[in-house]
Amino acid sequence: MRILITNDDGIAAPGIEALWRAVRDLGEVTVVAPDTERSAVGHAITLAEPLRVSAFAGPGGYAGHAVSGTPADCVKIAVRAIMENPPDLVLSGINQGANLGTNLLYSGTVSAATEAAMLGLPAAAFSLADRHYNDFSAAAAFARRLTVEIGRHGLPRGISLNVNIPPLPVGEIRGAVQTRQGRVRVLESFDKRSDPRGRHYYWMVSERMEDEAAAGSGLDDAAVAAGFISVTPINFDLTDEAMFATLGGWDLDPGTFSGDRNL
Amino acid sequence: MRILITNDDGIAAPGIEALWRAVRDLGEVTVVAPDTERSAVGHAITLAEPLRVSAFAGPGGYAGHAVSGTPADCVKIAVRAIMENPPDLVLSGINQGANLGTNLLYSGTVSAATEAAMLGLPAAAFSLADRHYNDFSAAAAFARRLTVEIGRHGLPRGISLNVNIPPLPVGEIRGAVQTRQGRVRVLESFDKRSDPRGRHYYWMVSERMEDEAAAGSGLDDAAVAAGFISVTPINFDLTDEAMFATLGGWDLDPGTFSGDRNL
Repeated sequence: MRILITNDDGIAAPGIEALWRAVRDLGEVTVVAPDTERSAVGHAITLAEPLRVSAFAGPGGYAGHAVSGTPADCVKIAVRAIMENPPDLVLSGINQGANLGTNLLYSGTVSAATEAAMLGLPAAAFSLADRHYNDFSAAAAFARRLTVEIGRHGLPRGISLNVNIPPLPVGEIRGAVQTRQGRVRVLESFDKRSDPRGRHYYWMVSERMEDEAAAGSGLDDAAVAAGFISVTPINFDLTDEAMFATLGGWDLDPGTFSGDRNL
Repeated sequence: MRILITNDDGIAAPGIEALWRAVRDLGEVTVVAPDTERSAVGHAITLAEPLRVSAFAGPGGYAGHAVSGTPADCVKIAVRAIMENPPDLVLSGINQGANLGTNLLYSGTVSAATEAAMLGLPAAAFSLADRHYNDFSAAAAFARRLTVEIGRHGLPRGISLNVNIPPLPVGEIRGAVQTRQGRVRVLESFDKRSDPRGRHYYWMVSERMEDEAAAGSGLDDAAVAAGFISVTPINFDLTDEAMFATLGGWDLDPGTFSGDRNL
């Protein structure tokens, strides 16, 4: 099994080394990750600037490729230019911080997995659900378990798995459950300041909202809060079926159409 | 009606002026947009850098706020810091270039609308489906029509509309139809070059794939190719229900769980 590993915390982050250690003997592993932290870049890709790729020697002994781009860039350039043969599986993480609820949309970690799915490759994203917790051992053990299971079952084309691990020691995690993306979101405010020249600037201040889902709701944040690993299968089709049906009743003609409406 | 307008081509782009002209008499319009082009940034937000906001006098007479950030940043800072009262509607565009199929994921234009939806605001994103076509009149007429309809019907919380207009003159567009997100995607390759110092770098080269959906499929790209405006209702829940059901049969226990599985 050829495994590609990437992340959004940067190629020197401890989480990517933990992931590499967890799966390195399961196949031929290639690490291609951003040269610096690229958190909250979402699914950004780099079209206006060239990408640089440099060799990186990980502190734990792994060799990797550091890319001057986003996580989605890393997946694309790994598959199309760096790897001789495309990977059988793409793993992203282990991110330091949760990727739950609507925050998936901002996540470079999750977008790397989604990008792989768009390229037709099975993928999973792993996040340790607390920015300040740095024991990756339970997350690593689960990443290994899930990698084996993906190897066994495969994933349907276009599907990836978004995994969040509660910040607990091995042995205190209660289990792993399949979940749906929750509604937890971040409420931002802006802190307005003046620079030494008297010009204004703003810092975006994010605070996680505390309107968490009830335990047993089947939503990702509820599972993690209850001490379970959440595994949310995700696709990249944003179509809303209910609104699709509703739209049929709207008058969308500005009076300028040609009148030939037969498809 | 308070309308917020943003885009990803930058506040000086002709498409944003066309959108402003189309709806300015429908309400109180505020323009908050990136100070430079921010295409393909997806749903990126700016956490590691401060944001600057400067006054911008549009060539067509509109006053706006130029932000040193992404389209999603613009929506957040407009709603949370610039506007005294939140908008009733957020419009994004008119983008020069299609946002169809899986390319939605990369689109700053669409992500601005999604961000608005995440904040609980009705929103629509408009894209002229050819990068080289610069007659915005049909797109502007439709943006005005749709704005009136959203004002009349409202949109369910969390839903936005992704609109693509074929590159045709007013009068040649056949109609507007509700569509689903298609599967069109871009196939990238990487052009490897050497700089004057002999170091390698790569340009990402995007080519639209020609595996377009059949006319009548109800997919966005098929509608636009047939001369229709596509209106795709989108949400931000990526959960895949089919795979959710499948996951129940997987063995996800690495042997380290506590055994207390009752939620």
